[in-house]
Amino acid sequence: MKVLIIGGSGFIGQKLARALASRGHLRGQPVTGLTLADLSAPAVVEASFPVNSVAANITQRDLVDSLAADRHDVIYHLAAIVSGQAESEFDLGMNVNLYGSINIYEAVRTLGHKPVLVFASSIATYGGETPDPIEDWYNLNPQTSYGAQKAASELLLNDYSRKGFFDGRALRLPTISIRPGKPNKAASSFMSSIFREPLQGQEAVCPVSPDYVHFFLSPRRVVENLIIGAEIPVESWGRNRSVLLPGRTHRIGDMVEAMRRVAGDGPVDRIRWEPDAELQKIVLGWRGLFNPARGLKLGFVRDKNFEDNVRYFLEDDLNTAV
Amino acid sequence: MKVLIIGGSGFIGQKLARALASRGHLRGQPVTGLTLADLSAPAVVEASFPVNSVAANITQRDLVDSLAADRHDVIYHLAAIVSGQAESEFDLGMNVNLYGSINIYEAVRTLGHKPVLVFASSIATYGGETPDPIEDWYNLNPQTSYGAQKAASELLLNDYSRKGFFDGRALRLPTISIRPGKPNKAASSFMSSIFREPLQGQEAVCPVSPDYVHFFLSPRRVVENLIIGAEIPVESWGRNRSVLLPGRTHRIGDMVEAMRRVAGDGPVDRIRWEPDAELQKIVLGWRGLFNPARGLKLGFVRDKNFEDNVRYFLEDDLNTAV
Repeated sequence: MKVLIIGGSGFIGQKLARALASRGHLRGQPVTGLTLADLSAPAVVEASFPVNSVAANITQRDLVDSLAADRHDVIYHLAAIVSGQAESEFDLGMNVNLYGSINIYEAVRTLGHKPVLVFASSIATYGGETPDPIEDWYNLNPQTSYGAQKAASELLLNDYSRKGFFDGRALRLPTISIRPGKPNKAASSFMSSIFREPLQGQEAVCPVSPDYVHFFLSPRRVVENLIIGAEIPVESWGRNRSVLLPGRTHRIGDMVEAMRRVAGDGPVDRIRWEPDAELQKIVLGWRGLFNPARGLKLGFVRDKNFEDNVRYFLEDDLNTAV
Repeated sequence: MKVLIIGGSGFIGQKLARALASRGHLRGQPVTGLTLADLSAPAVVEASFPVNSVAANITQRDLVDSLAADRHDVIYHLAAIVSGQAESEFDLGMNVNLYGSINIYEAVRTLGHKPVLVFASSIATYGGETPDPIEDWYNLNPQTSYGAQKAASELLLNDYSRKGFFDGRALRLPTISIRPGKPNKAASSFMSSIFREPLQGQEAVCPVSPDYVHFFLSPRRVVENLIIGAEIPVESWGRNRSVLLPGRTHRIGDMVEAMRRVAGDGPVDRIRWEPDAELQKIVLGWRGLFNPARGLKLGFVRDKNFEDNVRYFLEDDLNTAV
């Protein structure tokens, strides 16, 4: 069972690599090799099997061909230009998020070994005038270029799978919170930083009102779901290889109170509330109310409440037992 | 008001060109020039304004740039590889139906004049396990490569429009019946030929049972809708530039009886019923039950009943008054 993670430098790619190293098996077979690929060669993880690290830009088809040539059994495609940057750098977003995905699909199709291909899509594929709550058979009407590029990549993944070129599974990730690391150019970055920085004694700015409502999943559960996504039997998917991962809808103000219950008043007092009109134009175009029934039925998992998300961050990323 | 029709050799392109020549205006202004483009230079139509004919393959970006360089005010993008052929020739379908569309979007974006761009999408974008009847906010889950390529093109048209690169409108065409001309490689070809050929004294084969149910629109109404699609004010579209054109759901057996009411027993007796398993695999993946409320609200039009479709064919294509 050879595994490739494209986008292996990101925090999800790194956590997934560590999870695979820790469990040692996937789809009922021992993992015999793991390749981590990203723009710069990712940090390798310690494992009982060989772990390679490769620098490859997925906008270059020849590099993707080299990367895929090892005929991995499972490929995770997590590489993306995030929402804020894809909005300000349209061509870069198209090149990576759409044409980069197609380069991976075509490289795999050309090799003909039909691996499982797990693609990280996004809740940002939803938007527009679709009624609340969004059901599994409701439309994708993205209001960002990032969302449009992810949605188009999903449609093609579904068709390449239908044609038998590979066994694709597109998981629409809720907004991940609490994300470790630094703020990034994703418009959703604040949805982690208003917890992450205060929990480490630093100030953070919340650019929306406490009444902003959105749909969340913890990094711990995302990684579990990426593994589940590769393991679900092909026949369970029916005629749609895309699914919204089950998350939970939370109001920002309630999430802040959940942090207070886990970590006291100190972190909450370090949040500054400063509305940002430009950023709100993006995030108010996203959707927060979903009924993720299909994801749950397929066996995907979610957090019980936002206190879970806070605890997992302290345990997994700050090594602080609560 | 300069107009470009890409896919101008097809029967819809030709009918649209004649309709523009006949009415002489579009979006409240006189038409001052019409360019018809296709793989081979299309037949020109007689008009009171200049009509050009150009051969251009939309898979070649430089040819699309030349074609668009006239900065037309309204561009109709009707060019496509049809469903049956896109299924058997996957790369050709991708190159024309997806990358060809993107070539047009990019050429127009580069010119920066922001024309109205009307794109002929398709009912084939629907499919899969979406519940009946399909509402305007239900998902696209195409079960053909043609449908996937059209759906991906729609998503990008919506995003290019949101970004202000052009003013796009994607109209999902129901299956067109009764289509004039010859049978083609579309899997839906029989849905016209079982009427068209018998009405002209020839035999035709129906590869599905009389109980097959599908969603139809006449060529006359499609052309009216293409003009309406260019004229609807931009603000009416909201955050979704795609719409299902209103059609009517008919059972094949009932359509045959409608033909009997208009044209007597003779044509009906010339239909041979010969189920075709391979073709049914495609057409049974399509959907037939829709509630096209948004299209009607936007002002698009449909046929009253299938007798209309039969009469329009006799009047418009056989020059036979009924």
